[in-house]
Amino acid sequence: MAALKVYGLPMSTCTTRVLTCLHEKQVDEFELVPVDLFASEHKQPPFLSKNPFGQIPALQDGDLTLFESRAITQYIAEKYKDKGTDLLRHQGDLKEAAIVKVWMEVESHRYNPAIQPIIYQFFVAPLCGTTPDQSIIDANVEKFGKVLDIYEERLGNTKYLAGDYYTLADLHHLPYTYYLMKTPYATLIESRPKVKAWWEGISSGPAFVKVSEHMKFGEN
Amino acid sequence: MAALKVYGLPMSTCTTRVLTCLHEKQVDEFELVPVDLFASEHKQPPFLSKNPFGQIPALQDGDLTLFESRAITQYIAEKYKDKGTDLLRHQGDLKEAAIVKVWMEVESHRYNPAIQPIIYQFFVAPLCGTTPDQSIIDANVEKFGKVLDIYEERLGNTKYLAGDYYTLADLHHLPYTYYLMKTPYATLIESRPKVKAWWEGISSGPAFVKVSEHMKFGEN
Repeated sequence: MAALKVYGLPMSTCTTRVLTCLHEKQVDEFELVPVDLFASEHKQPPFLSKNPFGQIPALQDGDLTLFESRAITQYIAEKYKDKGTDLLRHQGDLKEAAIVKVWMEVESHRYNPAIQPIIYQFFVAPLCGTTPDQSIIDANVEKFGKVLDIYEERLGNTKYLAGDYYTLADLHHLPYTYYLMKTPYATLIESRPKVKAWWEGISSGPAFVKVSEHMKFGEN
Repeated sequence: MAALKVYGLPMSTCTTRVLTCLHEKQVDEFELVPVDLFASEHKQPPFLSKNPFGQIPALQDGDLTLFESRAITQYIAEKYKDKGTDLLRHQGDLKEAAIVKVWMEVESHRYNPAIQPIIYQFFVAPLCGTTPDQSIIDANVEKFGKVLDIYEERLGNTKYLAGDYYTLADLHHLPYTYYLMKTPYATLIESRPKVKAWWEGISSGPAFVKVSEHMKFGEN
């Protein structure tokens, strides 16, 4: 029996955030338990007891149940701190760890709120039978561009967001950016040399390459 | 000379998140350095070197500069882990700390995105000379109510969000909720007994009472 159970789907952005973290920490003893979104399994009692907000993923580790992908990745990074990449800079000083937190917060409060609606309109709206709202896309493309201008400057000083080492702050960006690169808005990344080099670096690591092979949302 | 410098304003939501944390950790050796938003000081080079996104607050601790209020609170909670309240459950096991992270993420990704636009429209829009957009308020009141329904259930099981102990997960909710309680939308909190009791508990602690005396935004 696998020690860890991840409830989610292999093409889901937030599930892949967790799966990439598991691979990065060289944790093999986990099982991915699929959740049938089309049958609304995530909105019914067995799943709601794992996450009352009814969204994937959730993590089960013995008697511990966690949700929110970024809380799960932090738990994995803490629990397996002696394996794989030091994603939270435990071995560094308190200051290094604090800078990782800063850029994790930037992803949550700046990057994600701008990129998420673009991905939603482009991939999810058509699946729900609605036409993508171009005005929402346009507004968020503008907002996202401004965020990326600051990333471009930051990545001129350090190789990764929190310093010259890869951390959870970078990892958290992978899923949405991966899908963005399949849209015409990939130019937002490609037109900024430092951001482009950062993206190519973080997306080509073996952990994410393995996970992204299954990220086929919107391809049919 | 104060060891820590907080760049911000005493009525700003995100600044008060940091100040409350400092008081909760019984840290007295800090200085609040005001930032003149009306003169756009936060959008000019000296401040931008502290936070490239041009928003308050920022923290200076010797040669370390941090921004994003929730990253700053985590740093303070880590640095002063032996003082005041154990806001991250360091003394607990890894599982307790993980549950704190879950509810910190819930605040960031569920609670804040719904309450923030209500506060913005109600308090900030008039200050910018625009009429509050009632349709934005209405949509977010509905969204926020659904989030609070889940809080109501959660707080039926545990006294605070992460368990029977007060943590950063609760603290992070204080500033926006405090301003919400000054609006007609306070009924969203008051109509839910468990949420109401939780709010009354967390907002009446000495750390926040001290900070909230200066939260007079929108009062003239």
